[in-house]
Amino acid sequence: MFEVIFLGTGSMKPTQKRFTTSFVLRHEGESILFDAGEGVQVRLSQSGLSPNKISKIFISHFHGDHFYGIPGLIFSMSHGERTKKLTIYGPKKTREFIEKLLSVGYSNLKFPVEVIELKNGERIEEETYTITAFSVEHGPPALGYLFKEKDTKNIDSKKMKKHKLTPNKKFRELKNGKEIEIDGLKMKPEDWLVDTPGDSLVYSGDTIPCDNTTLAAKAVTVLIHESTYLDGETQEDRGHSTSLDAAKLAKKAKAKNLILTHFSPRYLDTKPLLESAKTVFPNTYLSKDLKGFVIKRGELVV
Amino acid sequence: MFEVIFLGTGSMKPTQKRFTTSFVLRHEGESILFDAGEGVQVRLSQSGLSPNKISKIFISHFHGDHFYGIPGLIFSMSHGERTKKLTIYGPKKTREFIEKLLSVGYSNLKFPVEVIELKNGERIEEETYTITAFSVEHGPPALGYLFKEKDTKNIDSKKMKKHKLTPNKKFRELKNGKEIEIDGLKMKPEDWLVDTPGDSLVYSGDTIPCDNTTLAAKAVTVLIHESTYLDGETQEDRGHSTSLDAAKLAKKAKAKNLILTHFSPRYLDTKPLLESAKTVFPNTYLSKDLKGFVIKRGELVV
Repeated sequence: MFEVIFLGTGSMKPTQKRFTTSFVLRHEGESILFDAGEGVQVRLSQSGLSPNKISKIFISHFHGDHFYGIPGLIFSMSHGERTKKLTIYGPKKTREFIEKLLSVGYSNLKFPVEVIELKNGERIEEETYTITAFSVEHGPPALGYLFKEKDTKNIDSKKMKKHKLTPNKKFRELKNGKEIEIDGLKMKPEDWLVDTPGDSLVYSGDTIPCDNTTLAAKAVTVLIHESTYLDGETQEDRGHSTSLDAAKLAKKAKAKNLILTHFSPRYLDTKPLLESAKTVFPNTYLSKDLKGFVIKRGELVV
Repeated sequence: MFEVIFLGTGSMKPTQKRFTTSFVLRHEGESILFDAGEGVQVRLSQSGLSPNKISKIFISHFHGDHFYGIPGLIFSMSHGERTKKLTIYGPKKTREFIEKLLSVGYSNLKFPVEVIELKNGERIEEETYTITAFSVEHGPPALGYLFKEKDTKNIDSKKMKKHKLTPNKKFRELKNGKEIEIDGLKMKPEDWLVDTPGDSLVYSGDTIPCDNTTLAAKAVTVLIHESTYLDGETQEDRGHSTSLDAAKLAKKAKAKNLILTHFSPRYLDTKPLLESAKTVFPNTYLSKDLKGFVIKRGELVV
C-alpha cells in the first residue's frame, strides 16, 4: 500500500493552476520525491507533507520543469534543521548539475546530500521495496522509474472469518514465522499465512512512447505517463507523448491503471486528453496539483 | 510617475501566502525587476505582467530567497520566443553565479543575457532615470538600489487654467523647446515650462539599518526597506532589520513614504510590524504579494 500526491502536473513553465512536474510517493512513513519543478516546496507545504520526511529524490532528466525546485527545497530543509542525509538519483551528469546548483550563492548545507547516477536497468534495493531505473527516449539522458513493493505474507483473511478471529497483537509474531496460540487455537505460519503481492508504479518521465516503458509497466498497478499533448495537435517539442500514446502503451503493457500528467500549458481544460485516452484504456485518470491517489492491493483509490 | 508591484514579500522560504522576495518597477513601458525569488514567474503571470517587458534584473545579494526564480523566469522567456537582451545587475560574483545557474541542464537560451557587477556608488544612466547601487550590511556582498526619475519640464498647469487652455498636441513641441502658437497666443518655453522633480525609490535589499541606506534614502519618495522581524523578538539570522529599525531610518532620512517587506515566515499577521513602525514613521505601508503602489509627483497612491 502506498500513496501518490501530485505536487506539479504541468510542463515547460508553471501556470496559475499547475506547477511544473513533481509528485511524492509515500510508503511506510517514507516520502520519495519524483522530479522537483519550481515551487515544489510551496506545494509540499500546501499538501501538509513534511520536507524532512523526504529521503530520496529521483530526477527523470535535466530540463528545468523537472528540477528547478531543488535548491529551494534543499536549503529550506537545511534552514529547518535537517541533519539526515538526502539522496538524489538521476541520469548521467546528475552529480555535476546538483553540485553546480548547490554551489550558487552563500547558503551552507547542514546535512549530507549524496548523488547517485543510475543507468538503464540499475536497481535500488530497500527492505520493503525496489526502485529500478530505465532509459526512455526524450533527447537528453532521461530515465523512467519502476517502484515495486516486495511481496509480503499476511494472515489469511478468509480463514480468520471462518474462525471468527479479530486482529490481534500476536499476529505480528505469526507473520515473523512463529507459531502462536489464541484462545486455545494453535496457529502455524505455514497454515495461516498467504502471499500478498506488492503493488507497483511506473513513472515514465518525459518520453515518446517506448519499449522500455512498456516493459517496465508490464502488469503494473499504476502507470504515471506523461501526456503533454492531445492526439493530433501540433507538438511544440519533439520527444513527448499524447494522452492517446500513453493509453495505447498502458493497454499494451496490461497496466491496471493509468494516470496522465505533464500537460502542456496550452490545456486549461485537460478533459479532452482524458476522453481521448479512455477510448483505448478506460482505467485512465487525470492528475492535478495536490490530488492524491491511494494504491492498495492492486487497486487505485481516487 | 512609476508603479511598484510586489511579487514576493517573504524571506527565507516561500509560504502559502508569501513567495520570497521580488518586486517589479514599471516606468514608461519598461519593467525592471528587483530580486527574483522562487516562483517569480508564477506571480508575474498572476499579476498579468509580461516577462518579456523585463529589461533589467537587479539582484541585491545571493541568498536563495532573492534569486532562485531566475532560471525558471529566464528559460520561460526563452521558450516564449524572446530575442531582446536581458541585463542582470548585482554585487561581485554575480557573473559566476548566473553563468553557473544557466549552465545546469539542457535548455538553450535564445536571447543574450548580459551580466554587470556593480560596486558601491556605481550608477546606471538611462534617458529618463538613473539607478545607483550602494553597499549594505548583511554579511555576503549585498547591494541596495536607488531608482531616480530625471526631472522633467512640464507646462505650467496654473497658467494653463488662467488662459483656459486644454491639452494640445503642440505642447510636445513646446516641451522640446520650441515656441508654439495656439489661437493667436504665442507661447515661449521659458515662460510656460516649469520644472517637475522626478520621483525616487530606494530598495534596501537585506541589511541591518546602515548609513548607506540612510544616505541613499534622503528625501526619497518611497523607501522599500526589509523588516524581517518585529522589534524585540528573537532574530534567527543576524544581518536583518526590524520594522522599527526601518521606520527610524525612514524618519532620519526624511523619506516621504516607507513600505515594509521581506517578512520572516513566522509572521502570518504582519499588522504588529506595521503598528510598531508607525509609532515613529506614520507614512508606513505593508507590502503583500501582488499588491501594487503608484508613485506620482511625490505621492504614494495605494
